Amino acid sequence: MILSQADKELINNSIRDVKDFPKEGIVFKDITTLLNNKVAFQTLMNHLEERYKSYDLDYVAGIDSRGFIFGAALADRLNIGFVPVRKKGKLPSTTVCEKYELEYGFDEVEIHLDAFPIDNARVLLIDDLIATGGTANASAKLIKDVKANLVETCFLINLTFLNGVKRLEEHAPVYTIIDI
Amino acid sequence: MILSQADKELINNSIRDVKDFPKEGIVFKDITTLLNNKVAFQTLMNHLEERYKSYDLDYVAGIDSRGFIFGAALADRLNIGFVPVRKKGKLPSTTVCEKYELEYGFDEVEIHLDAFPIDNARVLLIDDLIATGGTANASAKLIKDVKANLVETCFLINLTFLNGVKRLEEHAPVYTIIDI
Repeated sequence: MILSQADKELINNSIRDVKDFPKEGIVFKDITTLLNNKVAFQTLMNHLEERYKSYDLDYVAGIDSRGFIFGAALADRLNIGFVPVRKKGKLPSTTVCEKYELEYGFDEVEIHLDAFPIDNARVLLIDDLIATGGTANASAKLIKDVKANLVETCFLINLTFLNGVKRLEEHAPVYTIIDI
Repeated sequence: MILSQADKELINNSIRDVKDFPKEGIVFKDITTLLNNKVAFQTLMNHLEERYKSYDLDYVAGIDSRGFIFGAALADRLNIGFVPVRKKGKLPSTTVCEKYELEYGFDEVEIHLDAFPIDNARVLLIDDLIATGGTANASAKLIKDVKANLVETCFLINLTFLNGVKRLEEHAPVYTIIDI
């Protein structure tokens, strides 16, 4: 299922560039203008459903917290479970944790040890954007740590100049919709 | 549209109690076990869709970050826009901010000033749980601050002994599914 050029432009045009956020010199890709545009949001969700309905997935895992938005809506459309990958300290039960490097320092993501009740669960990992891929890479590792089967990772926006996809492809195929 | 007793029990039984999280003496209501249970998740989403399809809503607003999960899936089902209410510092464009009291100190939530592009937008505010209602109350105020029409607020779980609903009812009707 290929996204038409017209639909890709509709989605792309609904994403707002905000200069100097979160700090000077950065152009932030604001997806709130996609989400509050029902035509753009539906176009994106229709495409994701079309693509993934034949993947025989058991779960969609979404990365904290914009990945929850697309991930939960997609899991609902596919009639499968949704699993949140969270920043450290948010999940209440027993977790597995992965540390990853930031520009300055480290951060950590977690998943529940029993996040995927089905054995060898087929999982799609989703987030809104991939930059250097630090969070996504750690999230992919977590899915493997708990013995699930990472089938693909999916990002609405790929900042290609930061090469995050290359790193992630060690874990599973990577699908991106808008490449910048 | 009333939720059947059987469906309510199915949803309730899928929510896990985790003792002593985030601190000793607190029993945390863990909804990840609802989300990764496709039958429970679909039952909840079917009920929300049935209830709200006749409300003529323009947007669902979800509270950071578990409200994103139910809110985005519901907005998708209703074919309307989704708007995130976020913790301070996460939204890139011009925002309106509301401060609210915590047990010790304050916290703040924000919404984009242009979050609702439709005039007098009809908005449902949703989150997974209402306790004292501090965050929800501030979120309800934000929706009014940007001149939208808060039609109802909706929570999967209501910790009735904390009386959050009473406070919120000053803004709009409150619908809760599981009352504890």
